[in-house]
Amino acid sequence: MTDAPTTSDALSALDELRRLEPPERAAVLSRLAPEVARELFEQLEAPLQEEVLAFLRDDQVNRLLEDLDPDDRVRLLETLPDPVGKALLARLSPRERRLTRKLLAFPEESAGRIMSPEYLPLPLNLGVDEALALIRQEGHRAGTVQVLPVLDEEDRLIGLAPLEALVLAEPEQTVGEVMRSPVPRVGPETDQEEVARLIQAADLLALPVVDDEGYLLGLITVDDAMDVVQQEQEEDFARAGASEPLDRPYFSIGLMHLTRARLLWLLLLGLAGALTVNVLSAFESLLEQVISLSLFIPLLIGIGGNSGAQSATTVIRAMAVGDIDQVRPIRVIFRETRVGLLLGTAVAAIAYLPVALLFDSALAATVSLTLIAICTLATLVGSGMPLLARRIGIDPAVVSAPVVTTLVDASGLVVYFLIARAVMGL
Amino acid sequence: MTDAPTTSDALSALDELRRLEPPERAAVLSRLAPEVARELFEQLEAPLQEEVLAFLRDDQVNRLLEDLDPDDRVRLLETLPDPVGKALLARLSPRERRLTRKLLAFPEESAGRIMSPEYLPLPLNLGVDEALALIRQEGHRAGTVQVLPVLDEEDRLIGLAPLEALVLAEPEQTVGEVMRSPVPRVGPETDQEEVARLIQAADLLALPVVDDEGYLLGLITVDDAMDVVQQEQEEDFARAGASEPLDRPYFSIGLMHLTRARLLWLLLLGLAGALTVNVLSAFESLLEQVISLSLFIPLLIGIGGNSGAQSATTVIRAMAVGDIDQVRPIRVIFRETRVGLLLGTAVAAIAYLPVALLFDSALAATVSLTLIAICTLATLVGSGMPLLARRIGIDPAVVSAPVVTTLVDASGLVVYFLIARAVMGL
Repeated sequence: MTDAPTTSDALSALDELRRLEPPERAAVLSRLAPEVARELFEQLEAPLQEEVLAFLRDDQVNRLLEDLDPDDRVRLLETLPDPVGKALLARLSPRERRLTRKLLAFPEESAGRIMSPEYLPLPLNLGVDEALALIRQEGHRAGTVQVLPVLDEEDRLIGLAPLEALVLAEPEQTVGEVMRSPVPRVGPETDQEEVARLIQAADLLALPVVDDEGYLLGLITVDDAMDVVQQEQEEDFARAGASEPLDRPYFSIGLMHLTRARLLWLLLLGLAGALTVNVLSAFESLLEQVISLSLFIPLLIGIGGNSGAQSATTVIRAMAVGDIDQVRPIRVIFRETRVGLLLGTAVAAIAYLPVALLFDSALAATVSLTLIAICTLATLVGSGMPLLARRIGIDPAVVSAPVVTTLVDASGLVVYFLIARAVMGL
Repeated sequence: MTDAPTTSDALSALDELRRLEPPERAAVLSRLAPEVARELFEQLEAPLQEEVLAFLRDDQVNRLLEDLDPDDRVRLLETLPDPVGKALLARLSPRERRLTRKLLAFPEESAGRIMSPEYLPLPLNLGVDEALALIRQEGHRAGTVQVLPVLDEEDRLIGLAPLEALVLAEPEQTVGEVMRSPVPRVGPETDQEEVARLIQAADLLALPVVDDEGYLLGLITVDDAMDVVQQEQEEDFARAGASEPLDRPYFSIGLMHLTRARLLWLLLLGLAGALTVNVLSAFESLLEQVISLSLFIPLLIGIGGNSGAQSATTVIRAMAVGDIDQVRPIRVIFRETRVGLLLGTAVAAIAYLPVALLFDSALAATVSLTLIAICTLATLVGSGMPLLARRIGIDPAVVSAPVVTTLVDASGLVVYFLIARAVMGL
């Protein structure tokens, strides 16, 4: 057996398209059949979509936008500068404009923005065969018919009927008999990350969005959830590496843009890092007396930084998957700090002998005690910062490894010199 | 409107179950209806599943395993110690055992391991209504009927018929008229990460796995792809934080286990970090002469570490999403190094004046030149290491931020002292 015989034409077309220069990308799309063009356009990253629009004629733009699903249209409009978005919105048909406006009314990153408001509701007592006939007749207008919402007489959501279950059912059964109920549901303001987690954890094909009286507002489908998972994790990962996520393919980003995107982080962290110069200046006379103290600075802050990064990463992931939602933050911090104490003790025990042999026992004691203190401190900061960030409403991933490391650098040095003073009696 | 009215009973049951101690988790599952128990069991993490099995009676274990989908069963068997897995396999019915063995024959992390080999093929010329009747009759045995493979007379894959398209079609149409063709397809040895990327990029509900002669082996469904995306990104993220991904909920992991999982990384990085002690010892006389050189050590290696982390993160993500698959590594490294040079120059320009004012111009020149050199070096190492890792067949995420930072620490110090010697004429 050989590896991956042939990947699809459709997908390589998409990859091809992403790599083209903006004018050619638009030219290629406008030459394709409208159906095909729309499907490819939908799968492009929003900034690339924006570029395409700039190179199309007005009537081509109108047709493309008119044909998009409302939730995909919202995702595109979100990235456009305000006046451009408003102008495009005004050119939509009244029906599509109304649908789009409704979604845009919900907060950014909320469930309301990614739901499809075009669904086909089924009444509870309809026969399965009649339901299938209804779907055949009306389903074209719905955003999805893979899952159909079942509503009561007052239009409140009772359950979901997967298309699969309708097809597999006996013809004499009713919608009510094959539907799933109760089903997971969210409010329109629920965070998209929470939505994706629900869909993934329960292997759902679609998640209904309801208002607080139980009326159905729309459905979120699994492909939208996958996009959210991808995007959120890219964000977390980028921030763990002191950068912002790229919103388009690597080679389509200019060198200056790539540099600017990183410079801010580097300067902010550098500014915080300048604290270490102050700390060292304050202890300069100690350094002059015992020059060998300076030899261990990078090693000690390196180990502190790594154990802080470990804590931050663990806590951020545990938060992201909802593992510690129902736990008081102090319990997490206490737990992490105990891990830090254990780690520090282990590393200190291993470090003592080589330092004592190569240098002297006072320095070895200083280094070992510092390792214990710095690992404990690092896990405290590493677990505390993301939890604090969430408490004050910031994305915890913003204060991940690089921020934690920088904070531990300065405070770790203070600890090191205080221990050195005490141990060496200076 | 309020936030998230009510999340599902099903999902909270799952969360509840994850939090229980192993014996109670097994007890709860064995009291539930077999259907419900199997569905919850399927959604548990593999190590938790393993614990459940240990607390069930043999007949309960048999029934649970027998009812699992073959691909879910394989995922569980993968995590069990070899003899346990073999014993369980032997107790399956011959049919299920044959299906499971087939999947286990494919390499770990390959498409073959997560495909569902139970599909319902449709002939090309079948009428849509007959196809739906066939699905109603036979569909229960298939792993999924959301997408149905269409095969030619020789059983080669021609296309895919989404259930949705069959239901929406006119009754007089044929399967051949509504199917999608050509469709993306992969070989059984294709990496699961590539599979997930294909499914996500093309918004597929299922991806067919075929052998090199085009015969269908199985289908991979979107929920399996989501699990792979989740798992791969958790791995990448954990490694960016110098740790290994947790395979179960945070609070279900013992303190010692949590510590051990991090200690290895910490020691390996610490060992590499010990290089810095050697470098500093080698330049000890220089440090003694100009004690103020030591004040900038943490700041310089901090900035170097961060810009290396930025590079590594960017390159690892670009690789993961396939952005640089068709590009020679040297182009990526050259591009990153130019970004590093630009970043270093910007940071150096900003740092010069304050250092010159607070210390002296020779030290300022040394620090600024080192910043340029260290940022360039860091982006070189940061982009080169993951590319090298992939070249020699290691997961690039293994050499992400922490490894890069540690390597840049030692080499950056050498650069610093060499520049200091040259500038200060020592």
